Parts: sequence; structure tokens; C-alpha cells
Amino acid sequence: MRNSIITREQLLKARETLSKLVHKTPVFSSEVIDKKVGANLYFKCENFQKTGSFKFRGASYAVNQLGSDQKKNGVTTHSSGNHGQALAKAAQLANIKAYIVMPENAPTVKKQAVRGYGAEVIICESTQAAREKTCSGIQEKTGATFIPPYDDENVVLGQSTAAQELIDQTEGLDYLLAPVGGGGLLSGTLMAAKYFSPNTKVIGSEPKGADDAYRSIKTGKRLPQENPQTIADGLRTSLGEINFEIIRENIDQILTVEEDTIIKALKMIHHHLKIMAEPSCAVPLAAILENKRHFEGKNVGIIISGGNVDLDVYYESLK
Amino acid sequence: MRNSIITREQLLKARETLSKLVHKTPVFSSEVIDKKVGANLYFKCENFQKTGSFKFRGASYAVNQLGSDQKKNGVTTHSSGNHGQALAKAAQLANIKAYIVMPENAPTVKKQAVRGYGAEVIICESTQAAREKTCSGIQEKTGATFIPPYDDENVVLGQSTAAQELIDQTEGLDYLLAPVGGGGLLSGTLMAAKYFSPNTKVIGSEPKGADDAYRSIKTGKRLPQENPQTIADGLRTSLGEINFEIIRENIDQILTVEEDTIIKALKMIHHHLKIMAEPSCAVPLAAILENKRHFEGKNVGIIISGGNVDLDVYYESLK
Repeated sequence: MRNSIITREQLLKARETLSKLVHKTPVFSSEVIDKKVGANLYFKCENFQKTGSFKFRGASYAVNQLGSDQKKNGVTTHSSGNHGQALAKAAQLANIKAYIVMPENAPTVKKQAVRGYGAEVIICESTQAAREKTCSGIQEKTGATFIPPYDDENVVLGQSTAAQELIDQTEGLDYLLAPVGGGGLLSGTLMAAKYFSPNTKVIGSEPKGADDAYRSIKTGKRLPQENPQTIADGLRTSLGEINFEIIRENIDQILTVEEDTIIKALKMIHHHLKIMAEPSCAVPLAAILENKRHFEGKNVGIIISGGNVDLDVYYESLK
Repeated sequence: MRNSIITREQLLKARETLSKLVHKTPVFSSEVIDKKVGANLYFKCENFQKTGSFKFRGASYAVNQLGSDQKKNGVTTHSSGNHGQALAKAAQLANIKAYIVMPENAPTVKKQAVRGYGAEVIICESTQAAREKTCSGIQEKTGATFIPPYDDENVVLGQSTAAQELIDQTEGLDYLLAPVGGGGLLSGTLMAAKYFSPNTKVIGSEPKGADDAYRSIKTGKRLPQENPQTIADGLRTSLGEINFEIIRENIDQILTVEEDTIIKALKMIHHHLKIMAEPSCAVPLAAILENKRHFEGKNVGIIISGGNVDLDVYYESLK
């Protein structure tokens, strides 16, 4: 079992290392939301993390763990979203080069953000094949190390630090909820709970229209996500290999939710927490709304994964 | 001079009283914004205050200062916005009745919010005359005490606690910036700086399309705001009497800004602070953007006044 590789000591080392590099983000709560759902919710606000999402934790730790020979040649990844910005900033802070492959249809504002962190942006066609091929080409040409968005032990260790902090910032959590896309955040959260809060049950949450993790865990076989249909754009990816192993071994439950409930949850976050949160962030709250009895009177930690929201998308989804 | 009535002891008493009633809101900053403007900005996030704005401070303190005879008959005000919600919640926490007069064209969501805090909502025509008449009628009928939104010493004392906290949460502020509508927040901020940070210059900021405070201070005569033209809907009101006196006596400067700059500043807050902020909140940052040289390298505190934003308005203003 792969997950047995990850030890308590590795988690503590990641936490210690990242304590100097990442923001310790605040935990918010809302009396109004608590009253509406009948539980005590603690929102870990990774939308306030550097580069606007938890992805900065994993990218920073992966960069930190490179040898000096590797650092010399820089890092690369392909991403249209948060991981690209996170890796660009992590590389900038480590004083190394970053090559970020982005699809031609990525929003201009995201390309500008990546360039703003000092990275070189390489544009390619918007297919997965073109992204991978372009990225391989860069690795060959420059010797840069590929930093994956989730399917990587150091990335998982980095992501675990959000839940590690949340466990310290709260008391007696009955549940910890994270959304599942590639599974980096959820597998990190599982490892944090396993070692530092063993009585806390960890629940993954996923849109019904992108439920590959749910189906994979149910069948015991990693199934790819094909043709995802959800506004939670961060959760359209398929589960990673190492992530699948960790989740399969440790998860209590994966709850899938309707799109309407995601939108309802997103509105609640907007109106009552007054923060900018991506649609993906609303999926755990949606799971609570659809299963109120299950969470009644419980203390529940929720990881708000990021706040890099396109205003047009945000508005369209909320009206 | 009216403002000489307000003493250091009164400010301390308001702070002490409200410490048990209001949230001590966090102070945010953004490396990206600091780099763009060339100054160190500290944003006091009153959007995270109870009921979503600083208005809860003034309303709570005014309610707290009522005698027990007055409390028996409850409180009333007319408001389509933040003061109505703030007073409703303050009354609810004090276990007294609140009658909130709201114009018929107020958004349903705002009426629901006020009712959600347990207040009775009385609908009237949307003219200022109808609002005042309806509110007077309620006072006569019920004996409820009218709690004004800004033109009141206790309200000003309550609002001063935002800046009092910000002064404690930061070090060596060169400037404190607040938006000016009725002037409650700005006059409270002036009093806080006068007694607790005398080296900090206080600057009011106002849209050019609603610049009654600027004109009033310039002419030394309180001029009403007629036909205001600005997206900063919280700043369309005219300066109050007591507020005018305090501002005239103590202000360093009022800066007026263009609508385009307000929108630019609002986008910066959205993209880099990841918080929901009302258009009014962006006015102080807009003043800095239009006067970069003036603030270069300085430590500047900014009060983010509230986050009760109508999504349609927000989107329209940002696109």
C-alpha cells in the first residue's frame, strides 16, 4: 500500500518547512450559516493563501524538496489554473526558473498572473495531448523538473498542511470535508487526520456531474472522469494514482451533490462569509446541505480551496 | 465646538463596551497591491463585522446607551441599507424591539435580512419625506427611540472603535483613510486618531459625483448632496450636522476620486484580497491610486466599510 510510505514525521517536516513559506490562513465561521445547517462549521480560508489557493502549499513543498542540481534547471508543469500560478510563485521565491505550459484558450488574466510571478509562459493547443507533449519537450530541452498538480507525494505532503493547521486552529472536529478533483487536497487531509486527529472522520465531496472519485472508490478501480458536467471547474480532473491509493485506504465516505445545491452553497458563502470563493469550494457545504441529519450538532471543518474566480463565471453561476 | 464634547474617556468606554458585542475584525494586506501602489496598505475588514458592515458598531453602542425605560419601547430607524440591518441585529442581541422603516423598492433580500434579525419591517414609499413621516408615526405610536444612522454622538463613538482597533493592530500608521457618506465613520476615525495616534493624518475620500463633504469643508458650510452620481451607493447621503462639525475641526484633507478609479480599485480588492467588499470600500484605495506620490512608501490604514453587496450591481460595476 502506497500510503504506508507517508509517515507522521514526513507530515511534520512538511509543516515545519512550509511554516516559513506559506500563509497560516484564518478559520472563519458564520452564526447564520451554522443556524441554517444546524452544525458548527469552521471554514479554513485557503482563498487567502499566496496565489489564491491551497495549491501553493504543494507546489512550494515540491520545489523545496528538489536537489540543487535539479533546482539549477528549473521546474515546469502544464496548467490552466491554480497549480500554474502556485508553481510560478513557488519557483520565484526559490529563485529558480519556471516554465508553465498553458492552453491557448486560458483567460488572459491567468496568463498575466503567471507571468507576473516571473515565469515563462508557453502557449499550446488546448488538448491534453498537446499540453503533455509541450511539457515533455520543455523537460528535454531545458532539463526542468516536472511538478505534477496532485499525483506526487511531496505535493500531497504540502497540501496536508492546510488540514494540519485547521486541526490545530479548532477543537474536537467530528468531521473534515474537502472537495475531490485530482485528489491532492483530500489525500493530504486524510493523512493529517490520520496522524493528528484520529477521531475526526474525513469525507470527500464531489459534484454528481464529475463523480469519478465516488465511482472509483465504489468499484475499487481508478476510473477516469469523462465529459465532466459541473460549474465546479477545479473538480473536473480525474483522480491521481497515488491519491486514489491513499483515499481508498483511508476515506470514510464520499458524498456527491447536485449542481443546484452547489450554487445554493456558493450563495451562502458569498452572503454570509463575505469572501471570494471558487465554485469548487462550495461542494463540501453542499454535501452538508444535502445531508443535514448526518451532520446535526457536529463540529465540521471545511477547506475553502481557493478564490481565483472568474467574475463572469461567478456571476453566471449565482444569478 | 461640538467635537470638544467627545473625550478620550468616552472613546475608551465605547471600546470597552463594544469589545463584548462586536467582532474584532482582521486586518488584511496584499503584497501585490502594495507593489502596485508603492505603499504599505492595511485593510481593516469591517465586511466581516456582524451584519456585514461597520454600522453594527454605532447601532450597538447607541442601543447599549439607552435607559431601561427607553429600551422597553424599542428602537426605530429608516434605512434601505446597512444601518437597518445593524440596528435590527443590535436590538435583537439587547432583547428589545426594532421597527425598521424600509422603502418599497428596497431589495427583497434586504427586507428578509432585517426580518431575519427579528425586526418588524414597515414598508413605505421611497421618498425621503415618506420615510421620515412613517418613522415619526412609529415613534408616536410605540414610544420607540429613533436611532440615526450617523448624526449622533453615540453612533460616532461606536464607529470610532473600528479605527481604535486598527491603530492597535498596526504600527506607525502615517495615514488613515475612510470613505465619507453621512460622515459617521470618518468622524469616529478622526476622534480615534486624535486621541490614540496623533501623528497619523486622517484623510476622507469621496466620489467626485457625491462630493458634498469636500464642498462643505471647502466652503465651511454644510451643503447637501443633491443628485449624487456614483456606484458607491453607501456614499450618496449628505453629511450629518455633528459629523460636519467634527470633520471640519479635525480633518487633514478630503480627496475626491473619479468613478473609473473606484472600479479599478474595486477590482484590485476583489482580485488580490479575495473579499466581498461594497463599492464604497474602494473609494479610499481609489484616492491612493490617484495620488500615488503622496502616499509613496507610507503606512496607510484603510477601513473596508462593508460587504453587503448586491451581486448584480457588483458584476455590472466590474465588467
